[in-house]
Amino acid sequence: MTETTPMQPDSPQNPHGGQRRRRGFSRRALLIGGAGAGVAAAAAGGVAVGHAAASRDIGPESQVVAFRGERQSGIITAAQDRLHFASFDVITDSRSDLIAMLKKWTDAAERMTLGEETVPDGATGLGDYTPPADTGEALGLHASRLTLTIGFGPGLFGPSASAPDRGDRFGIADRKPAALTDLPAFTAERIEPARSFGDICIQACADDPQVAVHAIRNLARIGTGVVAVRWSQLGFGRTSSTTKSQDTPRNMFGFKDGTANLRAEDTELLDRWVWVGKDDNPTAAQWMTGGTYLVARRIRMDIEPWDRANLLEQEQIVGRLKASGAPLGQKDEFDEPDFNITSFGAPMIPRTAHVRLAHPDNLGGVRILRRGYNFTDGSDGFGHLDAGLFFIAFNRDPGTQFVPMQQVLSRQDAMTEYLIPNGSSLFAVPPGLGDGEWWGQRLFE
Amino acid sequence: MTETTPMQPDSPQNPHGGQRRRRGFSRRALLIGGAGAGVAAAAAGGVAVGHAAASRDIGPESQVVAFRGERQSGIITAAQDRLHFASFDVITDSRSDLIAMLKKWTDAAERMTLGEETVPDGATGLGDYTPPADTGEALGLHASRLTLTIGFGPGLFGPSASAPDRGDRFGIADRKPAALTDLPAFTAERIEPARSFGDICIQACADDPQVAVHAIRNLARIGTGVVAVRWSQLGFGRTSSTTKSQDTPRNMFGFKDGTANLRAEDTELLDRWVWVGKDDNPTAAQWMTGGTYLVARRIRMDIEPWDRANLLEQEQIVGRLKASGAPLGQKDEFDEPDFNITSFGAPMIPRTAHVRLAHPDNLGGVRILRRGYNFTDGSDGFGHLDAGLFFIAFNRDPGTQFVPMQQVLSRQDAMTEYLIPNGSSLFAVPPGLGDGEWWGQRLFE
Repeated sequence: MTETTPMQPDSPQNPHGGQRRRRGFSRRALLIGGAGAGVAAAAAGGVAVGHAAASRDIGPESQVVAFRGERQSGIITAAQDRLHFASFDVITDSRSDLIAMLKKWTDAAERMTLGEETVPDGATGLGDYTPPADTGEALGLHASRLTLTIGFGPGLFGPSASAPDRGDRFGIADRKPAALTDLPAFTAERIEPARSFGDICIQACADDPQVAVHAIRNLARIGTGVVAVRWSQLGFGRTSSTTKSQDTPRNMFGFKDGTANLRAEDTELLDRWVWVGKDDNPTAAQWMTGGTYLVARRIRMDIEPWDRANLLEQEQIVGRLKASGAPLGQKDEFDEPDFNITSFGAPMIPRTAHVRLAHPDNLGGVRILRRGYNFTDGSDGFGHLDAGLFFIAFNRDPGTQFVPMQQVLSRQDAMTEYLIPNGSSLFAVPPGLGDGEWWGQRLFE
Repeated sequence: MTETTPMQPDSPQNPHGGQRRRRGFSRRALLIGGAGAGVAAAAAGGVAVGHAAASRDIGPESQVVAFRGERQSGIITAAQDRLHFASFDVITDSRSDLIAMLKKWTDAAERMTLGEETVPDGATGLGDYTPPADTGEALGLHASRLTLTIGFGPGLFGPSASAPDRGDRFGIADRKPAALTDLPAFTAERIEPARSFGDICIQACADDPQVAVHAIRNLARIGTGVVAVRWSQLGFGRTSSTTKSQDTPRNMFGFKDGTANLRAEDTELLDRWVWVGKDDNPTAAQWMTGGTYLVARRIRMDIEPWDRANLLEQEQIVGRLKASGAPLGQKDEFDEPDFNITSFGAPMIPRTAHVRLAHPDNLGGVRILRRGYNFTDGSDGFGHLDAGLFFIAFNRDPGTQFVPMQQVLSRQDAMTEYLIPNGSSLFAVPPGLGDGEWWGQRLFE
């Protein structure tokens, strides 16, 4: 340590002359003053757009997404380009410590979604002899449409897959929704506990990955002693469109998938299939009405064998043309698939095709909102890329939506041959926050 | 497999009616025709900029960086935002197979940097009964300033750290440059062979990560049977500026680092410190003159302990103010550090500060070109993020530049306490390609 050991405040060696010189370097200040550009800074709580010239990362990604509202952001928000998703274990039994952390998290999260530091002047303005309250790597970056979405896992309420012997540490067992049950095992998955489960999740989405990584890192840091990161996952590219203005991206199989996704404009369908109704789970009505359930699945794709399959096989597995994304037998991506078209007696969209099996017509009308991301986590040591889909879906009742859908897909979908699901988690996502409300307040009060 | 088994070409069940319907869906065609936007498509070999409205990923990232020229692109090219870096083992002893692959790689690489598929109509236009030659996930995406930079590791020429018993498989041992020697061990590193070494590297940089991932994946695929991915690394955000028009990004310590980096405009310094001269390595003059050497180091950062260090300690370790990036004792990021300033007898920039030790004045004038990326690869299972810096540097002679610099830093730099280098590699990067030339041609011919 030697010369890097902190000096005393009144030491003549202090090269800064106190903390004054650092003031004015907050993210927001840089946003306003940076590069001599005129920036309309985000008004607290609202939706504002920053504009500037002659600096990087200027454009749509400078937008601010409202943190508070009827729903949490990050669900029907137009899917951002990048993801950092973290699952935390709560490592304390202290209800008051957990609540205190959730309050701190809420403050920091709201500030970060505005493009600000976790606390005012947190990165560099709190004095020389204090660890900075903000880690600083987002200084100078825009809000980048950051959304932070919180969810609570089964283990917060008592025994769960990740901690079967756990008790009701926080006195909330009687508020656990019946729908918040560990997902069952599905065919052909290889679930790794170190990539699964958790007591609390935070989904950070942004158009700048450094902004999403900064947010998760700083929440993890604020939670020191109360939570520990159980697992986390970066997603480099969105695979879903959640508004009608977004195009459908391609997944790592090279296909457009999720064309028939629920979208923000489908308000009636969202009420039916995504948002929890007040009578859904009586024990949890107080804190989950208007919320939803988040399913997270890390699905590694066997991309090298996939790449050796011929085009027709690929298209028959998916049930769409690779080029246009049109359902087999149709011309345009958004044409409705017709499962009754046959050609010489055989269905044009095979019975094992993904688009057929995942279609609401073949699932009793059931729908979900998909919001996943492509990932690549280096290589597996055997010459293959460790790549795939980090599947995220929101649904009102996993037991009657995601679970039966996945039971059908895992048993019948021809695509299963090329998929290795190795992470699986479920979280209850409360509704959005009112003014002054903190994350989890309705659950704990 | 059942219904997904490929049908015969003349089967009445073929839902496509041949391959005609897929033509016109190449990346370039989509680029031109996409979203009704007016796009100036990239002219082959040149530098062109695409412009369009009402589609995502429109902007500077639609640019094309020239693939051929005096130098390989991706070195002094303005650093793109995202990285996928792959290191390959050559798994064949056949010189002709290796050369054939390098020719195929060159064709595909040049096409991909233009925003095109690996071969014309490769993703969907080669017929139903052929595995697509392009994996398709970049269909519809722009060139995104993709650069693909190739390097050759010591193991290609004979014995090396990764394969000490290897012979001269390809008859090029006499062309090995003396400078291409495995890096020595440095203090306080924990090198993992599974993240180190390799016979060939490809650095893919782009402003859209999906474009970089697509490029590495498709080159790996083209190389099946000849090379296997030894390791690969995604970088989510650039940490360097390589032209004077770029600002200095922040690393995962929250600091601006590399302010004094060599930049594209420093042509004389680049000739002195980056580009290999014709007399540097007589055995390799034929193929390395005008090239450079790439050092790749995966440096995990102990970010949680770092975040507990107070601001003064952080700044004294780095030697810069965190907010502005100014050297201690100065006011502006780009002010020259003054290592002689003392305050009551002690140096204001401590003797163990990174900026002092890494400064050319303290290394006999030695400089390097840094071009690294921030990474986050999930978590380590102990509650910590697996995050840090994927360090990439280019230098003319690692033995007299990077190695002595790193010997000083690894022994004296106070930052070492917070760094765990766990990957280390060195590659010889030939100069750029002339018209019709293929990667490695001057080495093998």
